[in-house]
Amino acid sequence: MIHVTEVRARYAETDVGGVVYHSNYLYWFEIGRTELMRDSGYRYADFERERGLLLTVAETHLEYKSPVRYDDAVRVESWLDDVRRVGFTVRHRLYLKETGVLVCRGFIRLACVDRGGKVRPIPVEVMAAMEKWVEPKAEGTATARASS
Amino acid sequence: MIHVTEVRARYAETDVGGVVYHSNYLYWFEIGRTELMRDSGYRYADFERERGLLLTVAETHLEYKSPVRYDDAVRVESWLDDVRRVGFTVRHRLYLKETGVLVCRGFIRLACVDRGGKVRPIPVEVMAAMEKWVEPKAEGTATARASS
Amino acid sequence: MIHVTEVRARYAETDVGGVVYHSNYLYWFEIGRTELMRDSGYRYADFERERGLLLTVAETHLEYKSPVRYDDAVRVESWLDDVRRVGFTVRHRLYLKETGVLVCRGFIRLACVDRGGKVRPIPVEVMAAMEKWVEPKAEGTATARASS
Amino acid sequence: MIHVTEVRARYAETDVGGVVYHSNYLYWFEIGRTELMRDSGYRYADFERERGLLLTVAETHLEYKSPVRYDDAVRVESWLDDVRRVGFTVRHRLYLKETGVLVCRGFIRLACVDRGGKVRPIPVEVMAAMEKWVEPKAEGTATARASS
Repeated sequence: MIHVTEVRARYAETDVGGVVYHSNYLYWFEIGRTELMRDSGYRYADFERERGLLLTVAETHLEYKSPVRYDDAVRVESWLDDVRRVGFTVRHRLYLKETGVLVCRGFIRLACVDRGGKVRPIPVEVMAAMEKWVEPKAEGTATARASS
Repeated sequence: MIHVTEVRARYAETDVGGVVYHSNYLYWFEIGRTELMRDSGYRYADFERERGLLLTVAETHLEYKSPVRYDDAVRVESWLDDVRRVGFTVRHRLYLKETGVLVCRGFIRLACVDRGGKVRPIPVEVMAAMEKWVEPKAEGTATARASS
Repeated sequence: MIHVTEVRARYAETDVGGVVYHSNYLYWFEIGRTELMRDSGYRYADFERERGLLLTVAETHLEYKSPVRYDDAVRVESWLDDVRRVGFTVRHRLYLKETGVLVCRGFIRLACVDRGGKVRPIPVEVMAAMEKWVEPKAEGTATARASS
Repeated sequence: MIHVTEVRARYAETDVGGVVYHSNYLYWFEIGRTELMRDSGYRYADFERERGLLLTVAETHLEYKSPVRYDDAVRVESWLDDVRRVGFTVRHRLYLKETGVLVCRGFIRLACVDRGGKVRPIPVEVMAAMEKWVEPKAEGTATARASS
């Protein structure tokens, strides 16, 4: 299943080239996975505060397809892939809400660590709650199309 | 005495209006006071890590006089004002390095707190080391002009 | 009348001190005035694109009252003050949504300019549409309390 | 040849996890390629303003190896790869200056476009001036080691 949320491009996120600066898409990826976790019943804020665990970023990859302009509404699609005992990957597609144009596709690979930086298994009940967001197909293309 | 350092406007700091976004001047104020402390013999990073003290922001005020564009070199002037037992104000002026045009004047008022958020006196030796940066005149106009 | 919208603190907006970095409140001020204009019938994006006019920032002032933490929902109150032919001030109060604690009060003073940077009158119909957001009292304290 | 410049982690660039937020490394990549161009005799700012050409970001990939903390000095290594008529890739390695620990390796793939978004060839004299920064080896590992 693909999680869907929405953001709107801030003026502060644009640059003199007239479009949203490329690193700011990673803020939207963050919002995508935060809301995916919230909709699984786990606030990431509680994950950090109550369990003392962090999801650190191990790798990111983004392909930029089409620009986003100030005040554009952007559809953020997020789903899980490559789930392991100590980490997982979140894949994303961003679309312009109004036109459906694909803006970006990419992923972020996360590892679970404790406050000391030591790799830790993700709690079983957390992974179970998020399992509905795991896509069987590596790229999820068909489902992404169908749901947009 | 007025502390002087220099920054360069990043592409990421500009916006679709063609100039540096107004909140980003506060990053340069941060660099100004960080370097002022370093040049007093105290790394602010050590102040936090070793002493467990933070300087929290209580108030900011900025007047925007002239825009900054991508890749402009900016002169950051910083000096202390209104020094008290538990806090002080850092005043700043920003100038375009090439032309000397005044970009911004403003201040940031800081309070010293511990990790629990309780107000604490600034260590005497830290304040003593920074005393050379205290300007006798509230606005420091004459000195600012003379040193630019 | 006081305009109300809501934001949520991003992880990216926090700092090593454990709370939202002070300059990021200006992003929320931006969202406040963008939504105030949208709710007046004028998208600021169209104001720039169709009319060739910009609202540049002339002055900002913020008083920080209480910190915001990651994932906190923040109520953004915005209203107009000191409306003139070529500019106006937007005043803001930020509150933690859950507890009602006051986070910040401040203002941003804007001037209307054209693409060449020349000061221009704000179109009469735009000001008329936004007039409902002008507060008669300078600080709007009573109304702010009543509406929260 | 590998271009080397240095940045220092700002407080604003850290997050509540205690380290620099992952997207901010892209600011340092920007500084790396801006300084590489400047040291080739071409200010990127002039490239945009005088020639009406932009280098848009088509793809980014980052592997995060070790965290960066507030006020750490970071060595930014940059070199060119996969140079084509209408674009090129800039590869980067970031190291902690004090310890030499590898922080991040990654790349950004750029395409040359005009103001209308149409793909354009990079001016021959610009590519010629930057040719010294093209690494013959895809990963540049040996040279990177030797030069650090």
